[in-house]
Amino acid sequence: MKADLIISHAYVMTMEGKGVGMIENGAVAVKGDTILDVGTTEEILAGYQADRVIEAKGKLVMPGLIDAHIHSGISIYRGMAQDMSHWMQKGLWPFKKNTTQEESLAGSLVTIIEGIKSGTTTFCDYDYGMNRIVQHYAKVGARARVAETVNELPNDIGKNPVGELYPFDRGLGGQRLQDNIRLFEEWHGQENGRITVLFGPQGPDMMSTELLLEVKALAEKYDTRIHMHVAQGDREINQMVKRYGKRSIPYLDELGYLDSRLMAVHLTEATVEETQLVARRGASMIYCAGSIGIIDGLVPPIMDFLEAGGQAALGSDQAPGNNCNNMFNEMKFAAILNKVKRSDPRVFPAWLSLRLATIESAKAIGLAHEIGSLKKGKKADLLLINLQDPSLSPVYTNPIRNIVPNLVYSAKGSEVETVLIDGQIIMEDRKLLTIDEKEAIRQAQEAAVQISMRSRDDIVEAHSDVYQMMEDGYL
Amino acid sequence: MKADLIISHAYVMTMEGKGVGMIENGAVAVKGDTILDVGTTEEILAGYQADRVIEAKGKLVMPGLIDAHIHSGISIYRGMAQDMSHWMQKGLWPFKKNTTQEESLAGSLVTIIEGIKSGTTTFCDYDYGMNRIVQHYAKVGARARVAETVNELPNDIGKNPVGELYPFDRGLGGQRLQDNIRLFEEWHGQENGRITVLFGPQGPDMMSTELLLEVKALAEKYDTRIHMHVAQGDREINQMVKRYGKRSIPYLDELGYLDSRLMAVHLTEATVEETQLVARRGASMIYCAGSIGIIDGLVPPIMDFLEAGGQAALGSDQAPGNNCNNMFNEMKFAAILNKVKRSDPRVFPAWLSLRLATIESAKAIGLAHEIGSLKKGKKADLLLINLQDPSLSPVYTNPIRNIVPNLVYSAKGSEVETVLIDGQIIMEDRKLLTIDEKEAIRQAQEAAVQISMRSRDDIVEAHSDVYQMMEDGYL
Repeated sequence: MKADLIISHAYVMTMEGKGVGMIENGAVAVKGDTILDVGTTEEILAGYQADRVIEAKGKLVMPGLIDAHIHSGISIYRGMAQDMSHWMQKGLWPFKKNTTQEESLAGSLVTIIEGIKSGTTTFCDYDYGMNRIVQHYAKVGARARVAETVNELPNDIGKNPVGELYPFDRGLGGQRLQDNIRLFEEWHGQENGRITVLFGPQGPDMMSTELLLEVKALAEKYDTRIHMHVAQGDREINQMVKRYGKRSIPYLDELGYLDSRLMAVHLTEATVEETQLVARRGASMIYCAGSIGIIDGLVPPIMDFLEAGGQAALGSDQAPGNNCNNMFNEMKFAAILNKVKRSDPRVFPAWLSLRLATIESAKAIGLAHEIGSLKKGKKADLLLINLQDPSLSPVYTNPIRNIVPNLVYSAKGSEVETVLIDGQIIMEDRKLLTIDEKEAIRQAQEAAVQISMRSRDDIVEAHSDVYQMMEDGYL
Repeated sequence: MKADLIISHAYVMTMEGKGVGMIENGAVAVKGDTILDVGTTEEILAGYQADRVIEAKGKLVMPGLIDAHIHSGISIYRGMAQDMSHWMQKGLWPFKKNTTQEESLAGSLVTIIEGIKSGTTTFCDYDYGMNRIVQHYAKVGARARVAETVNELPNDIGKNPVGELYPFDRGLGGQRLQDNIRLFEEWHGQENGRITVLFGPQGPDMMSTELLLEVKALAEKYDTRIHMHVAQGDREINQMVKRYGKRSIPYLDELGYLDSRLMAVHLTEATVEETQLVARRGASMIYCAGSIGIIDGLVPPIMDFLEAGGQAALGSDQAPGNNCNNMFNEMKFAAILNKVKRSDPRVFPAWLSLRLATIESAKAIGLAHEIGSLKKGKKADLLLINLQDPSLSPVYTNPIRNIVPNLVYSAKGSEVETVLIDGQIIMEDRKLLTIDEKEAIRQAQEAAVQISMRSRDDIVEAHSDVYQMMEDGYL
């Protein structure tokens, strides 16, 4: 039978079954956008011929990584808000209010490039102005599940005194919801199905009950998912208790929000019981280890969620705060931060991190029928990784194999050589084929210069810990 | 004046002063093994001419990183012992007893290459067979501060039942000490002073008081430092209490061991009071964030040590356990694990990580007169880093600069383009010039195949958590 591409003589990590599904001396045949077959090299070469054969001895083939939560629209402020208190108000806001949409787009593209170069093939992007950001994914050739950020906060919310109830602006909320609906209607299913659209209420504290319910009804009408921050910080819980006399999760449960349509991001402030309730109700949890570690100094209750049988995934969140969008970073932090939280090295083994960035993530975001594992009939989203990099050498296979722990604890992301998405080679030997990387970085740099000029007064006025470090010569 | 090399138009992070000492549009002039001058590009180009000028616009020049604690001699087992209990006995031992010195050397070289490719220029290596390992550093051209592991444990110590006192073999202890003395006499000050030798008692639990005191007297006689694990685990504390009725740190204090000659590694099990005592006595602390996080699920008391005014450094420890020897990894983990330990994002800011891998580390290991910062008269150990990598883009400079946090929280290590050690270019555009990287990896791979065949029965018998994961299809 005819294939377009065969990758042969590789370690193939299918992520099928309960573990990582490793096939030594394995091969994958691809036709069009689809995985035609996966098996031993012998089986595949006996069953298929292809125009192009990639000889991958000493390399690993694995499913592309899924970043289940990213805000690429604010990534232009990479590294500008960490090691500080009042992250949102003093870290992000002084920049955000001085940024044009073009500048935001320039940063977004750099982050998408960063993701692809470190093996991310599916991005669950969640930001303002998504109808423009989504064009990046179309052009780059990545898979994306996108949502417009919907809330009822006025544009000058940064001026709201810390601790006071947020004012809601129903008109703005309505407009943002319309943007999300238009995004769905224009983009859902586009680009050979690579682009799909979700609803993106920003959090239960940032909009009225009425708007939350309207979003829920729309998600059901369009039969799609809801991507939402839940119990993301003490700020949120304070707002909820002040406004409704209830914490976020009991409130959402009463609204019927905690079902399999919901991707609940963070759960940082959820109690054990609340976490278990979310798991039991069938909502998925998106865990952003690096971001919450840096911004809040906390480890969300992912272990409680998993132990309650919940469906979870990893996400990188945003570059100002986490400072990077590299899923190898997330896999490593997820494992180690949870070992430390429980003072037990056996907690969160490497294979679990890999599953939460591939097949379990695919289930958590509702794409397991298409991606997350290498299996006949699934989409051809896969990575070739150079196991001859010093960070992954030597390779042991018997009686213990070290590929999985080295991927999670040692790989940097730069070992990813080649990336296929939807059957197309997007990166080959670390060169992006669909986009001009240097030009993208040049444009982001230009945008950064403009933003920093325009934001100067607001940053000085905010006088954050980071600004103080700069004043003191530490940065 | 004539220089051999000028690097111009770069961001130069000198690490001089209390912060990071950033010079925008800076330059460095190098002659022989020495930094001739550091300043603005204007100043340097006005004062010096050179045969070679590296135009480094958009790049960062910074001091080479110091790995203050590494065991390169066991790195051949990279990724073979994590996510498990009884790391030493069940993880390491089944391999170690079946490994030849040649195989150990093959692994060591890969780790040194990994280190250099991620910016490490000085390695404090501490292992058995150092008289052979040190030849790698000589050949590669790296700076090393080496010690032979000295203890009185019999070669079949792996058979000692867990929890029982270790038997001491005075004869073996004497031989190992002789190896360390010979290492000193043959290598201290060699290779233009790049190689220096320390004494390496493995820990207060692994040798008699007499031998410990003999080591101390020798360190004084030769006027060098002692590199030793202290309070590295509950195993050690149990041995000490059982044998002497005292915990490690009070015992060492009584012996007069806690002085500025001592580099105390780990302190994982030290109480706050013990940690403060070590700091007060002037011994330095080497903190291995990734290794202790993975192997023990713990965060050593580095913050208490620093708050007590102690001199600390970061180390990567060994590849089986930590799985990598990349100081960018250590800087990141040090920062985030301590934020999480104290539930405070302001703890352990990025600049502190950078200092503990450069100038503070140089002080902690006793080489601050030569390395750790870019300063006229110091050795030319420096890195060129590509700030145009997506992980470090865009660059902001005003009113906040994001280079430092992006290096610590986002850089992977693969952004290091060029490495100078002792004035020599060791790596250029990521290509090692002094060693055949591919051949080194090939030899380590061959060694791994041999070790795995020979270790098979012992690994099966040990039946560790990792072996069980393999049996269950998770690896």
